[in-house]
This record gives sequence, structure tokens and C-alpha cells, in this order.
Amino acid sequence: MLAIGIDIGGMSMKLGLVNEKGEVKDTFTVVTNSGDPYEVTIKNLVHGIKELVSRNKLYPDDINGIGIGVPGAVNANTGVVDSAVNLGWYEVPLRDLIQEATGIQVRLTNDANAAALGEAKFGCKGKYQNVVMLTLGTGVGGGVIIDGKLFEGNQGKGTELGHSTLIMDGEPCNCGRKGCVEAYASATALMRQTKEEMKKNKDSLMWKLCEGDINKVNGKVPFDACKAGDPSGIKVIDNYVKYLGETILNYNNIFRPQAFVLSGGVAKQGDYLVNKLKEYCDKFYWGYKNTPVPDLVIASLGYESGIIGAASLYL
Amino acid sequence: MLAIGIDIGGMSMKLGLVNEKGEVKDTFTVVTNSGDPYEVTIKNLVHGIKELVSRNKLYPDDINGIGIGVPGAVNANTGVVDSAVNLGWYEVPLRDLIQEATGIQVRLTNDANAAALGEAKFGCKGKYQNVVMLTLGTGVGGGVIIDGKLFEGNQGKGTELGHSTLIMDGEPCNCGRKGCVEAYASATALMRQTKEEMKKNKDSLMWKLCEGDINKVNGKVPFDACKAGDPSGIKVIDNYVKYLGETILNYNNIFRPQAFVLSGGVAKQGDYLVNKLKEYCDKFYWGYKNTPVPDLVIASLGYESGIIGAASLYL
Repeated sequence: MLAIGIDIGGMSMKLGLVNEKGEVKDTFTVVTNSGDPYEVTIKNLVHGIKELVSRNKLYPDDINGIGIGVPGAVNANTGVVDSAVNLGWYEVPLRDLIQEATGIQVRLTNDANAAALGEAKFGCKGKYQNVVMLTLGTGVGGGVIIDGKLFEGNQGKGTELGHSTLIMDGEPCNCGRKGCVEAYASATALMRQTKEEMKKNKDSLMWKLCEGDINKVNGKVPFDACKAGDPSGIKVIDNYVKYLGETILNYNNIFRPQAFVLSGGVAKQGDYLVNKLKEYCDKFYWGYKNTPVPDLVIASLGYESGIIGAASLYL
Repeated sequence: MLAIGIDIGGMSMKLGLVNEKGEVKDTFTVVTNSGDPYEVTIKNLVHGIKELVSRNKLYPDDINGIGIGVPGAVNANTGVVDSAVNLGWYEVPLRDLIQEATGIQVRLTNDANAAALGEAKFGCKGKYQNVVMLTLGTGVGGGVIIDGKLFEGNQGKGTELGHSTLIMDGEPCNCGRKGCVEAYASATALMRQTKEEMKKNKDSLMWKLCEGDINKVNGKVPFDACKAGDPSGIKVIDNYVKYLGETILNYNNIFRPQAFVLSGGVAKQGDYLVNKLKEYCDKFYWGYKNTPVPDLVIASLGYESGIIGAASLYL
């Protein structure tokens, strides 16, 4: 079985031919220019799909379907990209345009959803049927797998797991509310928390780690300081672990998944982060003694996760 | 099509014969004595089921199944009641015991889940396939219907919608964490908030409404004071609406249901509460302009909702 997965980004669109084992057999990259009208970008995309099919000596009928992960708001029912700000796309009927041009069926989803499906199916090697994925990057993305299937909410607009309050009336969030998970547990939030602590403590090792320039702070700085025993670094990371741990506890009570999968920049901390989270969460898991405790794991599909995840819609 | 629904409570167990329209055709009540061992209670329950079948001139084969709503933690996979504190039940294999004694298949779920399913199927007359129900009583119960089916989480232990943080590190919650939805949006929390405000303001109308006795405060007092224009009452209700509104906004971003259904003591405020919630939430719904806004409605099944909801597992 073969499917095509497409990972749409602001700079490029990555296409991949993926088999039923989640192996990427061939890839094709379409460069996107932010100024291009969507018609041009889609024409290039269709060319890429046809190239991928023909150079592998395949016919459209050999492809089970084309899954597309979109960085924005998608209506899963109508196949319309409602808005993808980074692409300048608004109300683009992407599914129908690609289907008509290629003769292959197409399904769209939000990129975080696609990643969650790919990790559940292939990253975790089918070990889990119920997964919550949290992507800790510029924002906090969420994806939920229920009984092995992607759960997207009505019209595909649910699982915005970064936009539930952790602290009502807290830090302002991009969504217009205050105190959302994204405002505390994203890499952006971690950097803000690091800078705030650095301003309070001029002796912190974190100043040295960014060569005295606070603008050089990234998500790694507080972790490195914490590992080196710097009190300010420890404080920042302990707080961050609490924010993320409370988020995991919340979604555990809501979805009770078998596993949480963490991805994005902050997840590069791997076992160091996972162990701290386990230590925090183990104190607060709730339910009678037989209630299952979820596994906490780091996403494993790497740079091709977007392609594999999108293709998973048809695998 | 006929099913039996059983609503288990601390004082009594209500059994009902329900048809495919959600109509309760006959009922039978089994009184429970809290001191009884579970074997006795279950024997009485089996007697009730057999009575309901025989006096309606039916055979076990005429019953599609027996759905049971349990006030506690249920393992939906194994059919075991892990814990139902009010009944003193721990690890009771209820499903198998009833199945063996009656020859009718049995399914268990948490009582809040059962209520949600009943309201989605029959209260809302099938208008919605995706529903989040919040029960605002002593605690906050949650039930979620996805694509017309009950979503329970792994082993049936999810959708504990009262136990997600609204304000991290806030009011202590019964679950051992701090700042959960239940600690702000339950009827119990509303009464606490009312008492706190009364202690601050001895001139509040709320003192009169409870005849000068703060122990007479119930969930209706602050609503009555608010309606009468009492500044303290208005303050309590405005805050409560914010707590509940933020809860709805959170679960909207997570599940994006077509409707929220409110039940429990606080929901008796009906349209007065709904209109205030709509006013609050309308300012903060998030998503591109095409993103659906959920309906907010009050549960409509009334005192038989537990029976109808449990029977819905087989209707």
C-alpha cells in the first residue's frame, strides 16, 4: 500500500511517497514563495505529485490517497483551508483542487494532527491506540488519537490543546484569551520565563551561556544551566516542568490516553525532560488505584514526521 | 427495541424499561442500604430486573441490553466498578454478575457519561452528534459524545472534565490537585464563593435571602440576589459565569462540540445562566471566522435522565 504525504510549510512543501510500514520511499520538495497566489503554489504542488507518481513508475490508482498537513485552520469536512496565515491562504478549496488535478483522493488536516497520527502509527510502532501529542515549539500544538484514529473535533477544528487555560487571567495568549497552556508551556514561553529570571538575577550562569546577550536566549539555555546546577536555571526549569506537568495531568484526566508523545524544540531535551515530568506527574495522577498511568515519550519520527504523518491519513 | 437503564445512587437504584424513542415504559426502584454488602444489593437489583422483564410479559431476549450508570470509577473494558465510595463498592465485577444472573448483556459507564449520552440522543432529539455535557452539582461531572457515540477514554476513565486546572495553584480540589474546574464551577464552589462575599459585605441582600444564617446559603441565593440588583450578588454571579465560561471555552477548543449541555443544580437557572454564559463566551471564541460556535443548552430529560442515559448504551 502506498500513500503520498504532503507537509506544507511557509518556505517549502515536502512531498513523500510512503508505504504501509511508514517508510518514505521517495521525496520531492516544492519551494514556496510567500508572494505567490495560491493558484501558482497549488500548480507547483500538482506538478510535484505527478512527478512523484510517474518517476516511481506508478499510476494514480496505485496511490491510496494524498494526505496533506496544513499549518493552519482546516475544515476537515469540506477540505477547505480556512486560514493559513504564513501562506497567506484564506478559504482555499485545497482538497478539491488537488483531487481534480490528480485523480487521487485527498484528505486535509492540521499539521499537528497529522504529526500525532504518524507518531501513533509509526513512531510508537502501533504500541498505543490512544495518544495525546503535544508539540512544544513557537506555540503549543495538539493532536489526539482515539482508538487508533485521528480525533479532530467538529469540522476538524478541535484539539487546540495549546488554548485551554492553565492560569485564568494569566499571561496573554495569541488567541486573545489569557493564561492558556501555550502562554506557559511553549518554547517561546520558556524563553520569556528564562529572560525574566535572568533580569532578576545578574549572576546566573544563563548570562554566560548566552554570552551576556539576552537576545541569544533559546530553549536550551535554561536546561543547560539547570544541568550545571545554576539556581536560576533550576528555578526556570522546575517552573516549566510544573506548567507542562499540569498540562499533561489535565489532558490525562480529559482523554486518559495510553501515552503522551512530546515533540517540538523543547522535546529535544529527551529523557532529561521526560524524567522530570514523570517525577512531577507521579505525585498527582488521579483515579482509583487501577487507573492506568500514561507513558510519556518523545516523538521519534524526526524530520520526515510531517510527510509520514500526512500520509498516515491513508495508511 | 427495548433496553433497561439502571441509575445507581447512594439511596436507591432506579431501573427503567426504555424504548428506542427514549420513552420510559416502566420503572422499578430498589432501595439500597449503605451497610449492605454488595452481594445483597446486586441480588436485589437482579430481582428488580427480572420483575421488570416478567411483568411486562417479556423475555430476556426481548431486551437489547442493560446499561448501568455508576456513581464512581468504572473500568468499561472489564465491567468492574473500581470504586464507588458512596456505595462502599471496591472492585466489584458488576457487569459479569448481572449478565450471569439475567442472561442479558450488560454495559457499565460512569453516571455522568450515561447522562451525556441520554441527553445527546433523546434530550437534544438527535440534533447533535458531538456534545460536551457538564454537570454542575456537588462536583463537576463531564460527559463527551463524539460522532454520536460515548467517548470514555482508555478503560473508560477519561472525561473527568471537573479535574482540569482553571487556575493552577488555586483553590484546593477533592482530587488532590489545586485549581481544578470543580473547585470553581461546581454548586459547592458557588456556595463557597457566595459565603466569602457575604462575609465581606454584611449589607448584601444575600444575608436577607438566607434569613441571616450563612448555613442556609444554596446555589439559588446568589442568583436571586443578582437578579434583584444586589451588588454582591452581581459580583458573585459575574465571577461564577467567568469561571464556567472559561471552562466552556477550554472544552470548546479541545473538543469543538456542536453543543454544550448543562445539568445539575446550577443549571436550574436555565436561560438566565445560558444568556450570561453566551454573553461572556461570545467575546472569546477562537478560530477563523468559519469556525462553528457551539450551542449552549440546558439538559432537558429531567428526573429520569439517569435511567434514559444508561439505557442509551443499548439504544
